[in-house]
Amino acid sequence: MTRTNGRSQDEMRPAQITRNYTKNALGSVLMEAGDTIVLCTASSDDRVPFHLRGKNQGWITGEYSMLPGSTQIRSSREAARGRQGGRTLEIQRLIGRSLRSCVALDQLGERTITIDCDVLQADGGTRCASITGGYVALVDAINQLIKRGDITTNPVLHQVAAVSVGIVNDAICLDIDYSEDQFAQTDMNFVMTDHGEIVEVQGTAEGKVFTLDQLNEMANVARSGVFQLTELQKQALST
Amino acid sequence: MTRTNGRSQDEMRPAQITRNYTKNALGSVLMEAGDTIVLCTASSDDRVPFHLRGKNQGWITGEYSMLPGSTQIRSSREAARGRQGGRTLEIQRLIGRSLRSCVALDQLGERTITIDCDVLQADGGTRCASITGGYVALVDAINQLIKRGDITTNPVLHQVAAVSVGIVNDAICLDIDYSEDQFAQTDMNFVMTDHGEIVEVQGTAEGKVFTLDQLNEMANVARSGVFQLTELQKQALST
Amino acid sequence: MTRTNGRSQDEMRPAQITRNYTKNALGSVLMEAGDTIVLCTASSDDRVPFHLRGKNQGWITGEYSMLPGSTQIRSSREAARGRQGGRTLEIQRLIGRSLRSCVALDQLGERTITIDCDVLQADGGTRCASITGGYVALVDAINQLIKRGDITTNPVLHQVAAVSVGIVNDAICLDIDYSEDQFAQTDMNFVMTDHGEIVEVQGTAEGKVFTLDQLNEMANVARSGVFQLTELQKQALST
Amino acid sequence: MTRTNGRSQDEMRPAQITRNYTKNALGSVLMEAGDTIVLCTASSDDRVPFHLRGKNQGWITGEYSMLPGSTQIRSSREAARGRQGGRTLEIQRLIGRSLRSCVALDQLGERTITIDCDVLQADGGTRCASITGGYVALVDAINQLIKRGDITTNPVLHQVAAVSVGIVNDAICLDIDYSEDQFAQTDMNFVMTDHGEIVEVQGTAEGKVFTLDQLNEMANVARSGVFQLTELQKQALST
Amino acid sequence: MTRTNGRSQDEMRPAQITRNYTKNALGSVLMEAGDTIVLCTASSDDRVPFHLRGKNQGWITGEYSMLPGSTQIRSSREAARGRQGGRTLEIQRLIGRSLRSCVALDQLGERTITIDCDVLQADGGTRCASITGGYVALVDAINQLIKRGDITTNPVLHQVAAVSVGIVNDAICLDIDYSEDQFAQTDMNFVMTDHGEIVEVQGTAEGKVFTLDQLNEMANVARSGVFQLTELQKQALST
Amino acid sequence: MTRTNGRSQDEMRPAQITRNYTKNALGSVLMEAGDTIVLCTASSDDRVPFHLRGKNQGWITGEYSMLPGSTQIRSSREAARGRQGGRTLEIQRLIGRSLRSCVALDQLGERTITIDCDVLQADGGTRCASITGGYVALVDAINQLIKRGDITTNPVLHQVAAVSVGIVNDAICLDIDYSEDQFAQTDMNFVMTDHGEIVEVQGTAEGKVFTLDQLNEMANVARSGVFQLTELQKQALST
Repeated sequence: MTRTNGRSQDEMRPAQITRNYTKNALGSVLMEAGDTIVLCTASSDDRVPFHLRGKNQGWITGEYSMLPGSTQIRSSREAARGRQGGRTLEIQRLIGRSLRSCVALDQLGERTITIDCDVLQADGGTRCASITGGYVALVDAINQLIKRGDITTNPVLHQVAAVSVGIVNDAICLDIDYSEDQFAQTDMNFVMTDHGEIVEVQGTAEGKVFTLDQLNEMANVARSGVFQLTELQKQALST
Repeated sequence: MTRTNGRSQDEMRPAQITRNYTKNALGSVLMEAGDTIVLCTASSDDRVPFHLRGKNQGWITGEYSMLPGSTQIRSSREAARGRQGGRTLEIQRLIGRSLRSCVALDQLGERTITIDCDVLQADGGTRCASITGGYVALVDAINQLIKRGDITTNPVLHQVAAVSVGIVNDAICLDIDYSEDQFAQTDMNFVMTDHGEIVEVQGTAEGKVFTLDQLNEMANVARSGVFQLTELQKQALST
Repeated sequence: MTRTNGRSQDEMRPAQITRNYTKNALGSVLMEAGDTIVLCTASSDDRVPFHLRGKNQGWITGEYSMLPGSTQIRSSREAARGRQGGRTLEIQRLIGRSLRSCVALDQLGERTITIDCDVLQADGGTRCASITGGYVALVDAINQLIKRGDITTNPVLHQVAAVSVGIVNDAICLDIDYSEDQFAQTDMNFVMTDHGEIVEVQGTAEGKVFTLDQLNEMANVARSGVFQLTELQKQALST
Repeated sequence: MTRTNGRSQDEMRPAQITRNYTKNALGSVLMEAGDTIVLCTASSDDRVPFHLRGKNQGWITGEYSMLPGSTQIRSSREAARGRQGGRTLEIQRLIGRSLRSCVALDQLGERTITIDCDVLQADGGTRCASITGGYVALVDAINQLIKRGDITTNPVLHQVAAVSVGIVNDAICLDIDYSEDQFAQTDMNFVMTDHGEIVEVQGTAEGKVFTLDQLNEMANVARSGVFQLTELQKQALST
Repeated sequence: MTRTNGRSQDEMRPAQITRNYTKNALGSVLMEAGDTIVLCTASSDDRVPFHLRGKNQGWITGEYSMLPGSTQIRSSREAARGRQGGRTLEIQRLIGRSLRSCVALDQLGERTITIDCDVLQADGGTRCASITGGYVALVDAINQLIKRGDITTNPVLHQVAAVSVGIVNDAICLDIDYSEDQFAQTDMNFVMTDHGEIVEVQGTAEGKVFTLDQLNEMANVARSGVFQLTELQKQALST
Repeated sequence: MTRTNGRSQDEMRPAQITRNYTKNALGSVLMEAGDTIVLCTASSDDRVPFHLRGKNQGWITGEYSMLPGSTQIRSSREAARGRQGGRTLEIQRLIGRSLRSCVALDQLGERTITIDCDVLQADGGTRCASITGGYVALVDAINQLIKRGDITTNPVLHQVAAVSVGIVNDAICLDIDYSEDQFAQTDMNFVMTDHGEIVEVQGTAEGKVFTLDQLNEMANVARSGVFQLTELQKQALST
C-alpha cells in the first residue's frame, strides 16, 4: 500500500536537527520532522520543586506550546485565554516524564532544567518531535553545565526519541502527518530509548478499537522509526 | 511470587458495582475496587459542543475529581486553587475518549451526557475504576433516555472497562493498589472492550524502561482482568 | 397544617450519622438529613494561616462543594469554571465560623483542621447538614490527635448543630426540604449549641418580609430541632 | 454604660446622605455613617441574567468593593489579585437580595439595575451603609427611568435600610464602629423596611454565643436605628 | 478657533486639589480636572519587590481603577471579571514610572509606597489627573513618614504633573475632555517636571498621522499646561 | 562617540526580513534586527469584535509573546502563570494600534486579521521589530485575501515601521540593543510611516529626565532609521 503522501507504511518523514538555533538558552535545537517544526530550548535554574529541596537532587520538566500561527486555522493563544488547555498539559507532562527517564537526577545537582518546546509549524507528531529534539537540547544544556563546572559527572543514561504510529484504512503507518491523523482509526505515540526499550506508550482508538496483535505490530514499526531518530541525534551531537 | 497484599500476580482486587447510589442523576453508580471508591453519575443536557451543533449528533464527556479527604494527606481542592491540575485534565480526557468509543454518537440525539467521577476514597487505580463504573452509569442514563422516548435506538456498541498493570520488583502485577504503585517501575492502564480489544493504552516507565515482550505480557494480563470487570458490569446491569 | 411532605410544622426529617465512612481522613462522617447526603471529612495539617504563625494557636476551616450529579439539573463543576461561586464561599465561611466557635483554638496546637463537606445528594438544608455532620468529623479528628499525643487537653467546648426554618404559605416549617425551599417566603438557618445558644443566624426574606415575632418563633422552633440533632450527635459519638 | 466613643448603647452615629454626588450614573449617592463613607451609584443595562430572558421581568444586583486606601492598613486590590474574596461576594449578595426585596421586579421592564457600592473610607458597618445609601441611589435611578418613559408604574414597594448591632463587653450596642467591632462578641446586621419588618438577618457570635433573648433585644434596638435611617432617606429624597 | 466646550486651544480646564480627603491612608488627595475626579491615596508597606530585598532601597508603585459608575455606560468591575484589562495595566505602569522618577529611591528606606488612583468620575484625562494628584498624595505620605522618623532625608527630587494634548479637527488642543477625545486624530500624554523637562511621552495617532513639527508644538503647549498644574500643586502643599 | 557595540550613534543594526518563513499562516515573516529575532504571522478570521458587528468593517489586532528560551534568564511562560503581564499587554496594544493605522478598515470586509509576534531571540527592540515585521506579514495576508477574492480593493494606506532611540551616557543612540538598554537614561520608541510621519511615540526617562530639544533630536534620528526599515520592507515585498 502507498500512502496519500507517497510514503510506504514503514517510512519516516525526512527529519533534521539543527543545534544552536538561538543563542540565549543553554541548549537550542530546531527539530524538523517533515513539515512539523519545533524549537526546543533548555534553560537551567537553581531552584527545584518544593518536595525535592535539600535532597541534592535535580529535576527536569517540559513546557509545550503551539504558536498561534503554526496551524492553518489560527490556534488561540493560551496566555490570552488565561489557562493552558488539557491537551497542552497532557503533552508537557509526557515530555517531562520522557526526558527525566534518561537522566540520573541525583547527579544533576539541585537545579531544574526546563525544556521549552514551542511549535513553529504543525503537521502532526508535534509531541514526538518535541521529545526527540528536546533530548538534544537537554544534552547540550548538560554539556554546558559540565563545561562550567556546575556538574561533575555526566548524568545522561541513554538516548530517548519518540514517534507516532497510526492505523489508517486498517493499515499500520509510521510517523503519520496531519492529513493522515485526521482519518486515523488509531493514533499511538511510542517513546523509546536507543536500545529499543519503551519509556512511554500512549494510544487512542479514536475511530475503531484494535487488537493486541496490532499493538504488537505497531510497537515493532515504532522501534524501527525510533532507531532512525536516535541515529540522527547521535550525528547531530557529534558535530 | 506473592505480593505484599497477599494477592497472586494476576489477581484482581474484589470489585463491586452499586447502581442507583444517589437519586438525582440519570445514572448513579458506586464503583468499588478494593479500597478505591468512586461515585460515577451520568447527567444529560440538551446542548452539545459548538462544533457539533446542528449536526444531529450527541457527545459524551467525563469529569474527574478527588475529594480532598479521599487521600491520606489531604488533596487541596481544585476549585479553591482556581484551576484543574494537569493530572485531572489528563484523566478526564481519558474517561471521555473511552466512553465515547462505545456509543454511536449519531444515534444519541443532540445532547451531551456528562459522566462525573468523584473519588470518595483513593487506593490506586482511580481512573480505571472511573471508566468501569462510568460505563454502567452511562448505560443507566441511556436507558432512562430511551424510556422517556428521547432516544429511539439503543446506541451502545460494546462494553468498556479498564484495569492497571504494574511492574513491581520486575514482576508484572495486575490491578496494583496505592502501596504497590509507589514502588512500581512501570504503571500501565489498559482500556478494553468486552471482546478484549484495545480502546486506550497509557503506560509510563517511571523507574525503569521495559521491553516489547513485557508490553505484550502486560496486555495479556490486563485482558484477563478486564474480562472479570465486564462480567461484573453485565451482572450489575441485569439486576 | 400538614406539609406537602406530610410532616407537621415542627417535624424534622429523619437524620442519620455514619462515622468512619471512608478510611483515609482523620474523621469521616456521612450525614443524612432526609434525602440530603453530605460526606464530611476532617484532615489536619501542620500549617496555620499567616497571621497566626508562631502564636501557638490552631485554626479550623471549612470547605464546601456540591458534586455535579447531586442535583436534578447537573451543577457545573466549580474547578472546571475556575472559581468558586459566591454561594459556595458564603457557605464555607459559615461552616468555618460555626465549627471554630466550639473549640478552644489555643489548645489545638499550631495546626489547621479542615472540614470538607461534599454534598453527594442535595434536597435542601445542605449547609446545615454540613455543620451538623462536620462537628462529628471534627470531634473524631481531635480524638485521633489526642490519641497520637499531638493534643494533650481536649479543646472541644460544646456541641454545635444547625437547622433551617422556613416560612411557607405563611406557616413556619422546620427543616424544609428542596420542594418547600423553592416556594418559601423566608429561609433562615440557625446554628446553635447543645445548650440552645445561638452561634450564627442567617435569614433571608426572599419573597415576603417577616416580623420580629416571627423571628422569635422561628428561633424557638429551630432550637427544638437543634436539640434533636445534638442528641443524635451524642449517640453517634458514644458508639 | 457609655461606650469608648462616648455614645449611649442605643445611639446611632451621625449619618448623612448626599444625592447626585457624581454625574454619570443614573443615581449617585454619598452615604456617610460616622467615619464610614460609601459611594453608591446605580446604573441600568438592557440585559437581564440568562434565566430571566424573555419573561418581561427586571433584575437588581449589587457589587461591593473597598478602595485600597479606605483602610488603615492598605487592602490589596481584588482586581489585581484576580478574584473577589469571600467576604466581598457575601456582602454583594446581601446587597442584591436586600434591594431586590423592595422592588416589584415584574414592573421594572427587561433591564438590570446594578448598585455599585465602593467604600471610600471604612470605619465599620460598610455593608449596612451600602444598603442604606444604595436604596436612595436605586430610587433615583428608577425615577430617571420613569422620567425617560422607560418605566411606567413606580415599582418601589417600601424603603429598606440596614444597621449593625454588636455585643461588646456583654452590652448590646447599636451601630458599632471599627474600634468596637474588633472586640465585639457578636456582630449582627439587620436589614429592615420602613415598617420595621425584617428583610435579612445575619449574625455571628465570633467570641461568645448569645441567647434568644439577646437576639430579640438586638432586633428591637436595630429597629429603632433603622427608623432613623429610613427617616433620613425620606428627607434626602424629598429635596 | 474656539472649542466645542468654549475653551481656547491652549486653555486648561479648572483644576482643584483637595488634600486629606479621607483619613485612613497616609496621603489622600481628591484631584479634580474639569469633570474628571480621581481619588489618589498613598499607603506605605514594609515590603519591597523581591529583586530589591536587602538593598536598602525603596519602591513606588501605582494602581489604577475606574469605579463602575464613573462612566455614562457602566464600566464592568475588573475584580468581578477576574483580571485587569490592558488599558488599566498600561496606565498603572505609567503612573508608577512617573512617580518613581521624582524620588531618590535609595533614601526611602526598604518600603513600598503604593499610590492608588480610583476614578470617581471620568471625563477624559484620567491618567494625567492620577499622576498630578498622585504626586501630592505621595508627598503627603513621605512627609508623614519623615514626621514619624521612618525617613530622615527628604527624598523628593522634583515635582511631576501630566497633561494631555489632542489634535482635533487639525487643531492642537490642550487638556482635552471626553467629548473631544472621541473625535481626536491624535491623543498625547506628557508627563513633565516643574522645570519643564520630560519624564514620559505617550502619543497615538488614532485617526491621522502627525508630523515632527506637530509633535514639537504639542510638547510646547503641554509644557504651559504642566506649569499651571505644578503651580497648583505648590499652592496645595503650602497650606 | 563610538558605542560599546562599535556602532556610530545613528547607525542601525543589520536587519533582515524573510517572508514565507512558515507555511500555515496567511503571512509569515521572520524579522531579524541584529540579534533580535521575531516570528510574525498573520491569520484571518471571519469574526470581528462585538462593537463592529454588522458594520461591514474589519479589524486588525496584535498579540505578542517572548518564548521562554528567548532570554538569557528564562522568561516564565505566561500561559502557565495564567495571565499576560502588563508589559505584554502594553506591547500588543501598541502593535495593534500601529498596524491598524495603515489600513482602511472599511475596505477589509467583516474580518479580523491577527498579527502574532513571537520573539524567538531577544536582544532589545522586540516591540519595534514586531511592528516592522508585522507590517510585512499583514501585507502578505492582505494580498492572499485579494488573490482569493475576499477583498476587492487594496486597503493598505502607507507603510509603517518602528525603531527605538535611547539616551546612553547623555548621547542619543539609534536602535539600542539590550546591553545599551540596561544603562539607558531614556528609551523611546517611534512608530512612523514611510513618509516620516508619526503614528506612535512612547518614551520613558527611566534614569534622567530629558528636554524638548532632545525629544526633537531623537525624533529626527528615529526618522532616518525608519526610512532604512521601510526601504527594507519595500525590497522584501518586491521579491
